[in-house]
Amino acid sequence: MHDSSDTSNTALPESCDMLISAGMILCHAADGGFRVLEDAALAVTDGLVSALGDAKQPGRIKAREHLRLPRCLVMPGLINAHTHVSMTLFRGLADDLPLMDWLQTHIFPRERHLNPEMVEIGALIGCAEMLRSGTTAFMDMYLIEDAVAKAVRYSGMRARLGEAIFAFPTPICKSLDETEALIRDQAARYKDDAHIRVAVMPHTVYTTTPQILLRCRDLAEELDLPLHIHLNETQTEVQQCLASHGKRPPALLHELGLLGPRCSIAHGVMLDKDELDLLAATCTRVVHCPRSNMKLASGVAPLPAMLARGMLPGLGTDGASSSNNLNMFAEMSVCALLHKVAGQDPTLTPAHSVLDMATRGGAQALHWPELGRLEIGAPADLIALDLDQANLLPLYRPESHLVYAAGGHEVRLSMVAGRVLFKDGGFTNLDYPALLQEAAKARKWVLSL
Amino acid sequence: MHDSSDTSNTALPESCDMLISAGMILCHAADGGFRVLEDAALAVTDGLVSALGDAKQPGRIKAREHLRLPRCLVMPGLINAHTHVSMTLFRGLADDLPLMDWLQTHIFPRERHLNPEMVEIGALIGCAEMLRSGTTAFMDMYLIEDAVAKAVRYSGMRARLGEAIFAFPTPICKSLDETEALIRDQAARYKDDAHIRVAVMPHTVYTTTPQILLRCRDLAEELDLPLHIHLNETQTEVQQCLASHGKRPPALLHELGLLGPRCSIAHGVMLDKDELDLLAATCTRVVHCPRSNMKLASGVAPLPAMLARGMLPGLGTDGASSSNNLNMFAEMSVCALLHKVAGQDPTLTPAHSVLDMATRGGAQALHWPELGRLEIGAPADLIALDLDQANLLPLYRPESHLVYAAGGHEVRLSMVAGRVLFKDGGFTNLDYPALLQEAAKARKWVLSL
Repeated sequence: MHDSSDTSNTALPESCDMLISAGMILCHAADGGFRVLEDAALAVTDGLVSALGDAKQPGRIKAREHLRLPRCLVMPGLINAHTHVSMTLFRGLADDLPLMDWLQTHIFPRERHLNPEMVEIGALIGCAEMLRSGTTAFMDMYLIEDAVAKAVRYSGMRARLGEAIFAFPTPICKSLDETEALIRDQAARYKDDAHIRVAVMPHTVYTTTPQILLRCRDLAEELDLPLHIHLNETQTEVQQCLASHGKRPPALLHELGLLGPRCSIAHGVMLDKDELDLLAATCTRVVHCPRSNMKLASGVAPLPAMLARGMLPGLGTDGASSSNNLNMFAEMSVCALLHKVAGQDPTLTPAHSVLDMATRGGAQALHWPELGRLEIGAPADLIALDLDQANLLPLYRPESHLVYAAGGHEVRLSMVAGRVLFKDGGFTNLDYPALLQEAAKARKWVLSL
Repeated sequence: MHDSSDTSNTALPESCDMLISAGMILCHAADGGFRVLEDAALAVTDGLVSALGDAKQPGRIKAREHLRLPRCLVMPGLINAHTHVSMTLFRGLADDLPLMDWLQTHIFPRERHLNPEMVEIGALIGCAEMLRSGTTAFMDMYLIEDAVAKAVRYSGMRARLGEAIFAFPTPICKSLDETEALIRDQAARYKDDAHIRVAVMPHTVYTTTPQILLRCRDLAEELDLPLHIHLNETQTEVQQCLASHGKRPPALLHELGLLGPRCSIAHGVMLDKDELDLLAATCTRVVHCPRSNMKLASGVAPLPAMLARGMLPGLGTDGASSSNNLNMFAEMSVCALLHKVAGQDPTLTPAHSVLDMATRGGAQALHWPELGRLEIGAPADLIALDLDQANLLPLYRPESHLVYAAGGHEVRLSMVAGRVLFKDGGFTNLDYPALLQEAAKARKWVLSL
């Protein structure tokens, strides 16, 4: 597993913008697993990885900046493939409640009052939290995504954003026509953006209609955008769909032509074997959100069955008002543990599979396949973990530590597109004291609703 | 819940060794729940809490030292009620394996070579990890506990230690007589120790015999020590006990007279209703280790049924070679999430119950009831969490954040007996660079076995 011999195409260049030398660099291997380069170096040029290899002769490289991390492991930034980032606003406001009570009493009434300022503050809190815990990209479905986009831009992260599409008016869109116009506008504005991309995101089958779903499909095809939808999250959703449409949600989506490589579904808790086969056959992506599904008692998604079919799901935290944090290290750990006990088999969901989900799987779910891996030509979206933290001592197998022992506090550096965004506890451009003041303001606003 | 009015018996004293003023202090309330004092202060005198209350007039108090933590929440230090701390040595060496393969191929063969130096290094790694993540006391069962005691002493923590008792020789005890002599010696040496206490710890029913268990019972009674044993961890253990003794492990222990207020059992995964009633009726304590039980696919302990019986279990990480870290914040979070999904009810294991388990429940399991709570006269074993961390923004209900959102990295301060042991990322007396060198040495040793 520890492999520093394969340097055939990884020679160091003559010059670069930044050279990062590290105790270990964890990369995807050709066989789908991981390989660890020890005493390695990575060069960044124009925001991309321009070299990756042995660090023994770094003196040969002309680098404008040399970041020395001898006691760190450098790896691809994690990808949070399903969240509602601005829901940090409601974090911990109400827990330990039945789903419908929680939603209808505590969340929906407050969301009616959302405005761009509050959505942006909530998103900024979430971006700071994610950068601090090693996440460099995410997929977001919420209301007033233009405000989320402002936070993403300011934070320096990358995100695939989608204005949630409902059958009823939202604080920003009075009609479906307005929502469609907004998405068309966003798609045009972010067409060639390096950090922000757009998707068409109908909320669920039960908060939309078949007519709306068809319109979403057509819009996604016309604009060549991905589709993302909550699907089969709960038994109630499946039963309601059966009652309303005579078929389960995946069959409904398939009939309407939404399933396919363009589409990713969040949750997929209640997927039976035929539905798994259907998703696999149509190359539909799944994003697994185990902590949210546990906290809301939705159930346990059939992840081992997905892996057995060769599917590579993404991993997501869901919003912080249901899973309470946006920490992908916590999500990876719980993911690996949950399926072992649920499947009564400790060999299920091994560490390397979960790590692959949180990196390459997330990139696929975001339809941004160049993310999630460190290799020459890939975006320099990476994180560095401090291997001297006591909970990582001693170190035998990096993948094990990343999934089972790490908590996210080990992250010393988060970089997106070659730009250091978080380092040694501080944010390089995000004004954190100002964010704290805005968070206090948002708290007052939430409590006033 | 936020209550700063009850200051009847919490007036600040005229002088103290240290005054801690904090944005919030979280204490147990009289009804078994928690209360939060805002803008509060806590005075420490001779290692005990000597006052607790309003911080508005701290100028009146003569304090040798004044610790100002306006943006922190101060709370009781967490108690890890079941671990094998030195097993950090084998952390991540082998995962994703069936229990018996893992134990017999990877763990037991290496443990045969344990020596005091390596056990002490492993324990020091674990103590540093626990202090860094907000744990101030733990219960430990392992081999060569005198070496663990050295680490505990050096770290400044508190621990209830027990030499594991087996039917076969260990690296330190060739016979049961030797083990008994060692425990008698330890009990005498640590009789009036403020930081280290001893217990009688037969390993399991399947690695001992009824004769040994009887001897353990008699020894515990004679020396007035607690008993601690792994019990009903796996279905295999229960089946083997039935085959060997014609009864399940709890019935066997009860028949031998081991169950009772003196006794605590670790795991209790496979407890049926009658066994829960038996444990409740005999006031036997349970220590729940959800992450270990998940990772090894042992099963889901019936925690909600324990709570419904009015039992207050402790919470433990188990050893770092099975659960991979000693982070009680991770353990609390997973505990709360697991039982909601397993019981298909999001109202199960609410945050305050889990927090109570990790504090007061742990103290009871350790038979050290004065720990685990902040009140006048109680030991000043406390931690302070940075409420400005992004994952704790905004803050509505502290218990929710502590269980669902926190990860342990928010811990800015860990104090035991009024002594600051960890502060702002550094250890006050533990030589961390030296520990890193020792960890590297231990790694080499493990790989040489």
